Amino acid sequence: MHKETQRLIELDREHTLIAHIGALLGWDQETYMPPRAIEERSSQLALIEGLAHEKAVNPEIGELLAALEAKTDLSDDERAYIRVVRRDYDREVKFPQEFVTEYAKAASMSQAAWAEAKRKSDFAAFRPHLERMVELNRQKAAYLNPSAKPYDVLLDLFEPGSTQESIARVFSVMKAYLVDILEKIRSVPQVADLCSGRRVDPAVQEKISRYLMKVLQYDRERGRLDVSAHPFTTTLGADDVRITTRYVEDYFPSSLFSTMHESGHALYELGIDPGPEFRGTKLADAASMAIHESQSRMWENIVGRSEAFWQKHFPAISALLGEAGEGMDCVSFVKSVNKVEPSLIRTEADEVTYGLHVIARFEIESALFDGTLKVEDIPAAWNEKYRTLLGVEVPDDRRGCLQDVHWSMGAFGYFPSYALGNLYAAQFWAALTIEVPDIEAQIAAGDTSMVLSWLRQKVHVHGSRYQPGELVQKVTGSPLDPVWFEKYLRAKYSRIYGF
Amino acid sequence: MHKETQRLIELDREHTLIAHIGALLGWDQETYMPPRAIEERSSQLALIEGLAHEKAVNPEIGELLAALEAKTDLSDDERAYIRVVRRDYDREVKFPQEFVTEYAKAASMSQAAWAEAKRKSDFAAFRPHLERMVELNRQKAAYLNPSAKPYDVLLDLFEPGSTQESIARVFSVMKAYLVDILEKIRSVPQVADLCSGRRVDPAVQEKISRYLMKVLQYDRERGRLDVSAHPFTTTLGADDVRITTRYVEDYFPSSLFSTMHESGHALYELGIDPGPEFRGTKLADAASMAIHESQSRMWENIVGRSEAFWQKHFPAISALLGEAGEGMDCVSFVKSVNKVEPSLIRTEADEVTYGLHVIARFEIESALFDGTLKVEDIPAAWNEKYRTLLGVEVPDDRRGCLQDVHWSMGAFGYFPSYALGNLYAAQFWAALTIEVPDIEAQIAAGDTSMVLSWLRQKVHVHGSRYQPGELVQKVTGSPLDPVWFEKYLRAKYSRIYGF
Repeated sequence: MHKETQRLIELDREHTLIAHIGALLGWDQETYMPPRAIEERSSQLALIEGLAHEKAVNPEIGELLAALEAKTDLSDDERAYIRVVRRDYDREVKFPQEFVTEYAKAASMSQAAWAEAKRKSDFAAFRPHLERMVELNRQKAAYLNPSAKPYDVLLDLFEPGSTQESIARVFSVMKAYLVDILEKIRSVPQVADLCSGRRVDPAVQEKISRYLMKVLQYDRERGRLDVSAHPFTTTLGADDVRITTRYVEDYFPSSLFSTMHESGHALYELGIDPGPEFRGTKLADAASMAIHESQSRMWENIVGRSEAFWQKHFPAISALLGEAGEGMDCVSFVKSVNKVEPSLIRTEADEVTYGLHVIARFEIESALFDGTLKVEDIPAAWNEKYRTLLGVEVPDDRRGCLQDVHWSMGAFGYFPSYALGNLYAAQFWAALTIEVPDIEAQIAAGDTSMVLSWLRQKVHVHGSRYQPGELVQKVTGSPLDPVWFEKYLRAKYSRIYGF
Repeated sequence: MHKETQRLIELDREHTLIAHIGALLGWDQETYMPPRAIEERSSQLALIEGLAHEKAVNPEIGELLAALEAKTDLSDDERAYIRVVRRDYDREVKFPQEFVTEYAKAASMSQAAWAEAKRKSDFAAFRPHLERMVELNRQKAAYLNPSAKPYDVLLDLFEPGSTQESIARVFSVMKAYLVDILEKIRSVPQVADLCSGRRVDPAVQEKISRYLMKVLQYDRERGRLDVSAHPFTTTLGADDVRITTRYVEDYFPSSLFSTMHESGHALYELGIDPGPEFRGTKLADAASMAIHESQSRMWENIVGRSEAFWQKHFPAISALLGEAGEGMDCVSFVKSVNKVEPSLIRTEADEVTYGLHVIARFEIESALFDGTLKVEDIPAAWNEKYRTLLGVEVPDDRRGCLQDVHWSMGAFGYFPSYALGNLYAAQFWAALTIEVPDIEAQIAAGDTSMVLSWLRQKVHVHGSRYQPGELVQKVTGSPLDPVWFEKYLRAKYSRIYGF
């Protein structure tokens, strides 16, 4: 390893330590912090973020990168490492300070305006803020790469290597089959939801969550489960990755599947191991948000909502539920938690309609940045997409285009990752089932260790060594192909719905 | 306020923020951190400590202090503030870097050696380390103030304004009456301990702890209760002061009284309010460790172990205990938790023998630094003190002079604060009972709010505005006088033991 790389690693590790300290401040704020501590906590966070920024824009990083990029004898790992360091460094240094300040101020005002507009279902009041955030995101893209399409630059921030065109291509295939499967499901009798309205004590739900963490081999020597308003996973160190869940008293599957979802994220983070030389560096970051999502969705859905999984674990859960679980068997439980029903919001959507929510937003974002849709026309476009894609009527903007915080923060290009995660998960799963043909039998016997060890070895260890496109090619032998998700959905839902 | 003071406050606040971030890292380590995170946590703490040190030795502080100290028109608050900033600044800058490094290394080796020596009860193995720590503490004192007696310098670090002579004076008075009271108690029948061996579920103990926090008006909007191996209080912000307790299954009073003890510390920290100008500065630190201890001991002992307090609250605790509380009434409970019995260690000692443990250690430390006792003679001296002061035979050094971690860390001069806390508490209490003659009746009626508001107004608000000696003079009208603790003990124990 070159001495410049070693120095880069030193600087990087210090930055990582600071980032992890910031993560603890954030975790504590969401879990245990007494409410009135919020004011000083904001100052503590600002101080840590300031420090992290200071480390991130250190000109020495630029000099080391330049020196290394001129070399021809880099190892593969060095090359990958320099790529991710360059990427983050450019992001930190390419924005003028006044732009950063302006953006932060506008985003803050926009979020406040959004919250108020959502409450009143008043899109007109939010519109100027949204226009400003779109404009600022165009500028942001121009600072990063003035010669690329702005939306491509934004997408690349979340999913390295992706473009509007590449995503549109897979989404158009996905859209066709999601609509088709949804139609098929609508043509047959709906399954019963036996879980809604069943009151389950949060203490019981917590026991079930801990049971599931154990089944999934999420090591509590290196992690934790706590409660927060919105479930999340956070990394506080290479050996400290924590998840949260929440306990909805009259819908216990919520905590079960969010625990498995967040466990999937945590297992990924805990499995990253680009070797001791790169421990604590950016090479130990995840490959992308969509790859991250593929891990959470695989455990939540492909494993966690499968019949095989519950064959073994339903009796245990049932025992923990006690009276609250009466009148439900394994088959009816699995059907219940796989019920497909178009709704107004992605967050609680089933596996079939989930992608349609994402497509709706992607198509609107694309049109916005292409200039074929004006901000003022978003509500109409939104409602039309929900009508045609999901077959639901949006009653008001509060439950329509104002439903979600992302746009108000300026997070354009973020949503596709949610659906790409499902596609990656299905493609990884297909590869896994080919290599381990009896995987379903293993799961049905209560053993998911092969799933974890396969993911560890194929996906997790690499961290950000490969871009998502390279990774899926390396793991599965072919580029991202939405057909695997189609195969998975058709097999699963034809069984559940009998079509 | 002078502009130099304003600038000092700016620098100070940033240091405080960093210290509070460090406190969160520490709190999390003791409460929720997954075990394998310890390695990175150490690096995170080292980074934060490094940052804090960097801020603390900023030469600008020295310049500002010099400029301010030359002024003749300082307000009282400015003068007090400059005193505490000067004190901390000198402590940070007066040690050469190589001494700091050497000290840290020696202390670390000494602690490891102590742990091993304690396990084997092998004082000889620990002796060279202890000799080194004594020698390094002499050097430390010389760096801080070469013209003062070393032990005086060390004592002043924990109890500003105190000296070996001033402490010896109050301790000699205290020793006489503690020995006398102990003799009296030994001459009458012992009270029964009805609490030991009663198994109480930790969940029940937690409910009782939360009940007591509420009674004491420890606001959970600004604090928390968690569990740790050793109970502690930590300040993470002006509005974020947390305590921990532990639940001993077969001795439930342990959690009750440690919760009240730590609540007392927390109430103090939360009550400090030197005005908005000095919020988040060193003027918002406690006056001293002994003043801190006076607050915890007042709630734990003077209020918390009083008959008046339990008249109101015993029925509630009893209801929470359920079956586990059977066969115990208020009077027998109060007697049980006030049982006086000499033992080998301070940490669990009753109010009468507690001070004797501290005196034993103070006398040994005094002799060590006076040069009249050699380290090698500590075990014999220790055992002799325990024989004459407490009337107990020390069976081995593990339970004798090796019992405690403080010396191995080099914390000489620390112990007197523990006993001074009792003296301050009794003197404050005497003043309170004169100003509020019906305080006992109020407490018996379940209302301790007057105790808190009196302490808030007289002691808490000031922070470190006054040195302990000034504070006790201001609050009670006279200097520290051990007679108040004597009066308190004689009244209380003659009632309990009937002598």
